[in-house]
Amino acid sequence: MAVVARLSESKAGREANALDRLNELCAADLARVNQLIVERMQSEVPLIPELAGHLVAAGGKRLRPLLTIASARMFGYEGRHHIGLAAAVEFIHTATLLHDDVVDESDLRRGRQTANAVWGNQASVLVGDFLFSRAFRLMVESESLEVLDILANASAVIAEGEVAQLTTANDLSTSEEAYLFVIRSKTAALFAAACEVGGLVAGPGSEATDALDRYGANLGVAFQLVDDYLDYAASQDKLGKEVGDDFREGKITLPVVLAMRRGNEAEHAFWRRTLEECEQDGADLENAVALLHKHDALDDTLIRARGYADTARAALSTLPDNEFRAALEDVVDFCVDRAY
Amino acid sequence: MAVVARLSESKAGREANALDRLNELCAADLARVNQLIVERMQSEVPLIPELAGHLVAAGGKRLRPLLTIASARMFGYEGRHHIGLAAAVEFIHTATLLHDDVVDESDLRRGRQTANAVWGNQASVLVGDFLFSRAFRLMVESESLEVLDILANASAVIAEGEVAQLTTANDLSTSEEAYLFVIRSKTAALFAAACEVGGLVAGPGSEATDALDRYGANLGVAFQLVDDYLDYAASQDKLGKEVGDDFREGKITLPVVLAMRRGNEAEHAFWRRTLEECEQDGADLENAVALLHKHDALDDTLIRARGYADTARAALSTLPDNEFRAALEDVVDFCVDRAY
Repeated sequence: MAVVARLSESKAGREANALDRLNELCAADLARVNQLIVERMQSEVPLIPELAGHLVAAGGKRLRPLLTIASARMFGYEGRHHIGLAAAVEFIHTATLLHDDVVDESDLRRGRQTANAVWGNQASVLVGDFLFSRAFRLMVESESLEVLDILANASAVIAEGEVAQLTTANDLSTSEEAYLFVIRSKTAALFAAACEVGGLVAGPGSEATDALDRYGANLGVAFQLVDDYLDYAASQDKLGKEVGDDFREGKITLPVVLAMRRGNEAEHAFWRRTLEECEQDGADLENAVALLHKHDALDDTLIRARGYADTARAALSTLPDNEFRAALEDVVDFCVDRAY
Repeated sequence: MAVVARLSESKAGREANALDRLNELCAADLARVNQLIVERMQSEVPLIPELAGHLVAAGGKRLRPLLTIASARMFGYEGRHHIGLAAAVEFIHTATLLHDDVVDESDLRRGRQTANAVWGNQASVLVGDFLFSRAFRLMVESESLEVLDILANASAVIAEGEVAQLTTANDLSTSEEAYLFVIRSKTAALFAAACEVGGLVAGPGSEATDALDRYGANLGVAFQLVDDYLDYAASQDKLGKEVGDDFREGKITLPVVLAMRRGNEAEHAFWRRTLEECEQDGADLENAVALLHKHDALDDTLIRARGYADTARAALSTLPDNEFRAALEDVVDFCVDRAY
């Protein structure tokens, strides 16, 4: 036990270090973003800041707004639009989490109770709508129709991905392609938009913003692949959410897609019982993990994640070679290193 | 029974006539709006058009998009932006209905099963998010930051109103002022924005668009007051939804606020049991209606509705005296006449 705890601490330390450069470079801007987030989640309806504050207090790494900040600063941007857009991106992400928690009926998020467990599904849906609308107001303040178009489109794509995920849940015939559509939409679209709009306000031209878009999209896919890996492979204290959530909810993620494809009849019956019929008992998660290992499904998920991470890194190569770019390279390492 | 049926038919006839002029004047534009709605609710995720189509098929009067169209055409607008904005307004309305049905756990809307009863809460939340995002894309196409600001703000205000309504549910200490905040936000804000943005694309100047804003806001309050009246006073076939929904859900609407204020101790106990503790039996709705009549709470709700309707009508008086303005006057009559 003591060894596990030390390993876990040392891992937490490594994670922190991986994002140190990004956090240091963007610290002043991030403080302005955090202030703006608190300002714009206010309302004369007290339940709104109360519930939204629960999520803001939960914190998280603010990875998406950091991407927006670094993408603008990389080109020497000295204006203020990247602050509002970074806050908008975080609001969209937070609204998605709120609606996702309603959907998933999960009880833990970042190790704390989810908002819907405390305030009910109804409030979570409506406060999510509020934050989403406030995100759009922040975007309008950028006064760029191109920025608005990119973020409005990303929001629609996120919703499409979430609905597609709902459709593939409990469906073992889900292909790797259908799974990739889900994670590209629900996760990678916002990573890509966060980077692209950061670049856009700085105005470096379409070649550079396209590169940022590619970087974000591939980073997002890598990030979600590692997330789906960790849902089977992490220890609870590392993940900050319950291991096996995806399994319990019957979500069909890449490890399962691969194990199904490579499994025999008896194994198919196991997956059908546990994921399609949702009949699970205490030992089933352990059995599932054993089957995933047997077919290298977890390792192969990581191999794919590294592929997308490499593409993300390559997309940065045409951009200005400065410390912001280096910090964005760190993010790629961070996304993949979480797995180890 | 036969008499009731005839009365009901004749009432339906009157309602149709009241909006005839508006529908005729805007028919060609509304057809373009309906086509655009169908186009923009498409997605490669089949569940999205399936679920959204359920609501579109349910139809409704398209009152809000008609307001946008008439508000633009009144000033001789010959462009195309009002079409996209009318579709955006209807998407925002539809998304709100989807999220509202999740919240209310109601089983009927316009006499049909609600989407969440057919597809589940999860899909309703996410398809609502999708339509909401698509609404923003349609708004961006108007290329007007002023329009975007108005509709993004209205969306946030709607969500605030919905959260406030959640907070006042089952709370008999809700004041008339708090009730008015709820309906101004959740209903009137979108009516007002629908009118104002219609005017804005035609560009008649701020005095005229302010008048349209006032018209829509007061019309919306009158509309919701009559809705809340009908929830106790209508017969089921007239309303197209279940009478007594608000009572069963413990929603505190104006009739109840007035009856509470005017009631004695025994009556307070009745309202507490039925609306705060939600302990209701078969005869309670009838008892509630009797108490509302005893204190003129239903009549007084209508009197207030007529007051807002008069203010809406007055707001139109400074606008061009043409058939579009006359059609918007008809809408005021329609909103109030639904009660008779």
